Amino acid sequence: MSGVTYKTAGVLGGMGPLATVDFLSKVVSLTPASCDQEHVPLIVHQVPQIPDRNRAILEGSDTPYAPMLLGLHRLAAAGAEFAVIPCNSAHHWYERLAASQSLRILHIADAVRQELQRRDMASRRVAILATRGTLRSGLYEGRLGEGSTRIVRVDEHAQLLIDHAIRAVKAGQRAPAAQSASEALDRTLDAGARVLILACTELPLALEYSPRLVDCVDSTLALARYCVAESRAEAPT
Amino acid sequence: MSGVTYKTAGVLGGMGPLATVDFLSKVVSLTPASCDQEHVPLIVHQVPQIPDRNRAILEGSDTPYAPMLLGLHRLAAAGAEFAVIPCNSAHHWYERLAASQSLRILHIADAVRQELQRRDMASRRVAILATRGTLRSGLYEGRLGEGSTRIVRVDEHAQLLIDHAIRAVKAGQRAPAAQSASEALDRTLDAGARVLILACTELPLALEYSPRLVDCVDSTLALARYCVAESRAEAPT
Repeated sequence: MSGVTYKTAGVLGGMGPLATVDFLSKVVSLTPASCDQEHVPLIVHQVPQIPDRNRAILEGSDTPYAPMLLGLHRLAAAGAEFAVIPCNSAHHWYERLAASQSLRILHIADAVRQELQRRDMASRRVAILATRGTLRSGLYEGRLGEGSTRIVRVDEHAQLLIDHAIRAVKAGQRAPAAQSASEALDRTLDAGARVLILACTELPLALEYSPRLVDCVDSTLALARYCVAESRAEAPT
Repeated sequence: MSGVTYKTAGVLGGMGPLATVDFLSKVVSLTPASCDQEHVPLIVHQVPQIPDRNRAILEGSDTPYAPMLLGLHRLAAAGAEFAVIPCNSAHHWYERLAASQSLRILHIADAVRQELQRRDMASRRVAILATRGTLRSGLYEGRLGEGSTRIVRVDEHAQLLIDHAIRAVKAGQRAPAAQSASEALDRTLDAGARVLILACTELPLALEYSPRLVDCVDSTLALARYCVAESRAEAPT
């Protein structure tokens, strides 16, 4: 075995279910491992019955908070040492969740900021492709806006396409999701954006086979990279 | 919401990590759902540091047992109401694990038997493609052999190819895995088998794009189907 130790990641998932599977797949892919035992240990709370986060934000409802907090408590009880939430909208409740239980939570917008820096994209004009709830919450602006990153707004037509793509992925309809998401991408690039942040974990699934992915920062992939780095610490030799 | 209630499935995973992701993906795909909230709730213990099951069986070692039992206890503590183990070799310890804690565990060979019946294949000559540990354990023969199912042995050359394919998937080397697994399939069909049971959860990953899949029963898919059926019970109206 190599000189690597692992912290167990707790994944507050199920928002949506396929996005969580995509996140786990990306964690496995990003981990340098030659056998099972070198992979990152994870506890996953895939409980999709948590009320819709986007709708709650738009309606001013607090219903997702209590089941998410319960999920974090269960992850800690099952052995998790830190937590990730592969759902952007859920980060609307990030500060309260972080303050109300013991697990450190890696913020998905911090993961995206790191990815922008890693790919030398931080000074380019970015657009945030997300649910209306995530946009209303402003959870990206606060964490990206401190540097030189300039944010281009997505217009209403593109937002309607994004809304449709997200719903379609959640209903298992990948082909119409791909079409809507691609149209939204093209429209937003035409409007002057140079980098598209896929700030909803359903969007990478809609765009899985798109050649436009080179212009995108996938928040699921960014969070997976952050999670692997956090879990794997080189042991002192 | 529909008149469906859900039991939370506990997944004792990480054996291997990619096989668990494949299992979760199949659970999501097999669930009839139009929104997040209609999906199956799961708690997943993806802790790949459990010692190699195949090697332990062949060496007469018991080292995987205690960490697997701990995993089941943690799943129960986190809210699981029944358990599945998407690793065939791990079922060598099935009886003791089932007897030593409170969660009912769905047996992967029972899932395969149900799938053989569902596809009207139960009376055909089957071959079991598995680790040497699973074969040594005899965990399939006992559960398939009661009916009219006839089992064709895999020869040593094909077994060497299977061993290689499994190791390659665990190391993230999908192309050589695909080649070895395909050769093993062809050789076993030539030897008279009519149905190939992929009785190691790495093998469906090796054969993901194979046209031979029509002749196979995928134990991961079978367990996913069993898990969804167990979780979703139509509520009385």
